[in-house]
Amino acid sequence: MEILDMKRAAELIEKRSFAELKAALGEMMPADTAELFGELSEKGDSFSEKELTLMFRILPKDTAAEVFTFMDNDMQVTLINAFSDRELKAVLDELYLDDTVDIIEDMPANVVQRILKNADPEKRKQINELLKYPEDSAGSIMTTEYVYFRRDDTVFEAMERIRAVGIVKETVYTCYVTDRKRLIGSVSLLDLVVADDDELIENVMDSNVLSVPVHEDRESVANLFSKHDLAAVPVVDNEERIVGIITFDDIMDVMREENAEDIARMSAISPYEEGYFKTGVFRHAGNRIVWLLVLMLSATITGFITGQFEAQIAAVPLLVAFLPMLTGTGGNCGSQSSSMVIQGMAVDEIRPKDFFAVILKELGIAGICSTALAAVNFIRIMIFYHDPVIAGIVSVTLIGTMVLANLLGCVLPMAAKKLKADPAIMSAPLLSTIVDSFSTLLYFSIAMAVLK
Amino acid sequence: MEILDMKRAAELIEKRSFAELKAALGEMMPADTAELFGELSEKGDSFSEKELTLMFRILPKDTAAEVFTFMDNDMQVTLINAFSDRELKAVLDELYLDDTVDIIEDMPANVVQRILKNADPEKRKQINELLKYPEDSAGSIMTTEYVYFRRDDTVFEAMERIRAVGIVKETVYTCYVTDRKRLIGSVSLLDLVVADDDELIENVMDSNVLSVPVHEDRESVANLFSKHDLAAVPVVDNEERIVGIITFDDIMDVMREENAEDIARMSAISPYEEGYFKTGVFRHAGNRIVWLLVLMLSATITGFITGQFEAQIAAVPLLVAFLPMLTGTGGNCGSQSSSMVIQGMAVDEIRPKDFFAVILKELGIAGICSTALAAVNFIRIMIFYHDPVIAGIVSVTLIGTMVLANLLGCVLPMAAKKLKADPAIMSAPLLSTIVDSFSTLLYFSIAMAVLK
Repeated sequence: MEILDMKRAAELIEKRSFAELKAALGEMMPADTAELFGELSEKGDSFSEKELTLMFRILPKDTAAEVFTFMDNDMQVTLINAFSDRELKAVLDELYLDDTVDIIEDMPANVVQRILKNADPEKRKQINELLKYPEDSAGSIMTTEYVYFRRDDTVFEAMERIRAVGIVKETVYTCYVTDRKRLIGSVSLLDLVVADDDELIENVMDSNVLSVPVHEDRESVANLFSKHDLAAVPVVDNEERIVGIITFDDIMDVMREENAEDIARMSAISPYEEGYFKTGVFRHAGNRIVWLLVLMLSATITGFITGQFEAQIAAVPLLVAFLPMLTGTGGNCGSQSSSMVIQGMAVDEIRPKDFFAVILKELGIAGICSTALAAVNFIRIMIFYHDPVIAGIVSVTLIGTMVLANLLGCVLPMAAKKLKADPAIMSAPLLSTIVDSFSTLLYFSIAMAVLK
Repeated sequence: MEILDMKRAAELIEKRSFAELKAALGEMMPADTAELFGELSEKGDSFSEKELTLMFRILPKDTAAEVFTFMDNDMQVTLINAFSDRELKAVLDELYLDDTVDIIEDMPANVVQRILKNADPEKRKQINELLKYPEDSAGSIMTTEYVYFRRDDTVFEAMERIRAVGIVKETVYTCYVTDRKRLIGSVSLLDLVVADDDELIENVMDSNVLSVPVHEDRESVANLFSKHDLAAVPVVDNEERIVGIITFDDIMDVMREENAEDIARMSAISPYEEGYFKTGVFRHAGNRIVWLLVLMLSATITGFITGQFEAQIAAVPLLVAFLPMLTGTGGNCGSQSSSMVIQGMAVDEIRPKDFFAVILKELGIAGICSTALAAVNFIRIMIFYHDPVIAGIVSVTLIGTMVLANLLGCVLPMAAKKLKADPAIMSAPLLSTIVDSFSTLLYFSIAMAVLK
């Protein structure tokens, strides 16, 4: 399959070769078409909103809405503003409910109002319902478009229902069986296909069905999907009544976003919503500067400690030469253990009950690593400086620093989790700053005790 | 649904209440059952292999194989060793091909031989075929169990085929249409369900079908899934012939593993295969110690630089007090920009063509952040030390360090990618070490020039 590139698309529009453009667009995957729109819009003034709207209008009817869902926010707003009410309604009718809600969540208020105005009343009600769920909850990523049967429906009736509702999305591959709205089982489309037409649903359904509460955190839902290899999971309210379903495609997005969020937090960056390029330089700077300031000012504590030992430094200036290695290694150890623990907690491998097992493990690791590094370090200093006293001071400090760094690296993230904060905050940058102070203090204290 | 906990399960086995145990196990999700086996085996001697094998034998026939796939490696080996050939064959017959290959990949050689000996000849051939693909390739995660039709099959024939092959996995939700093994289209089970029985496949199929080459990197495949919201993708050889398919459940595993790998590498840890608890203390230490040593020895460069300025330090000991803040902030900036760029490249948002755009962006961010931090810092030093010269030296060094840190933070990972190395290596720990040397050198050089 050939992908229409930006240059060729621009050419075709300029030449007004719409038939050719339409044919070429018809052969592209919706996500690629959406990307093409994005690239064209970035070309700026040579390619105006008018031309983009025009290009959207010649998209094949059956894929236009899908292309729309793959577009980024700015492009969607641009198009909605260019649409007539009728056009907007046509696109909205084709959109899946969960996609509509995703789109609305990031839109300016006036656009949201226009969308709600043009949605049909039933859909509007459902959209408003879905918008109420807190961000990051199961409710916020579910869709209310799913198929359900009663236990005394026949397979034939069930298949007729599927054909009738006309949802053409993954959401029908698992259907649910309810009894007065309460979830009592699930049945896959494949089960229906292989079953006899007059078989009752209750005989083909699987009554072992997992579900998630509507307020469950979406990261936990993602862990559940991945643990059980799920394609979909029903979402239930407090009374175990099914209110929607979540499908794997939304979960893949959640996994990506949560991962990006963790990596950002672990690097002392406030999580950002849009992509790297979509986010402006000032916004990027804003996301980074607060932590930089906090950490910079915390680092002055280490500076302050160093300042207290000015006399010692003046007397034995060589001492300063080993400080970067000590603080650096402490930071690296803290970074290693905290990232293991943060990642382990994110995928639900490390749980609160494992607290002491993790501490023991990290102490063991710190013991092995610090002994080895201290030995290498002792030999190195002896070779280059022939000073067993300094070598000893540095090596002992190294062991103390590494043990503490590994300990804090696991304790702080677990404590953050306990306090309902994001463990990822307690990662390398903050840890390094804390460990720096400690190792500096320990180093000069030992040096003072030994050398004076 | 009630989950049988470890204590209760142990009790039931001790009391030999097998009927009750069987009923309780029958109500659990396979992944939870597998977890229960793991927990029981960790209890150690009070719960022997014999009891675990016994418990596996009373699992309901239809879920035993699935439970087996969810178990960890050690447990699988334990059970295989306890199985008779007949039992092993029974489990193998129920396993999906891709799961079998996943299991085999991590097994000791003698167990692999026993598995291959007990698989039927056709399956054995396919397993051997799949084992040939390099780790991390599309081939290594695909399954050869998929359903394909010819263009002139009817919908009725297609449905009969699906019923006949009896695959009860997600793999049949998208079927493929081939022409002499060459992929020409896809058709979803839902398309078949809603179409008329005598319609030809070529009229219901979608000829816009994405595929991936068998040697494609699995991370790229995951990006493709997530970009296009795919449930499955066919894998093709050099001649565009379909050789297997990859489904979303395997992709969710890939996403997890790749995330964990990136986070480990970004924290200077060699990626590890097993989970946190499964990996022994010595193995953990081994994964961390190499980088710690490399970084520790690199940090001596900074120490060496500091050593060259001993005279200056002895003359103005106050200088040392600002060093931790300078190196710390440099490390934080490098960590921020590298993690953004590494993450952006991992999800294919940042591509090689974006090289200069990224550099420009990072320079802009560094400009804003460093100006702000330098100003705060200048004021702080003036307040506490009333020394405009030192304040100036520190602030100028801070700006230089931050700009360089942001620059290296984006250039090094992109250069690594260009050289086909993993960009995640060029992250915080290594960067900090490099930036430390630079900032120390810059700081003392400026100080020397100004103060002398």
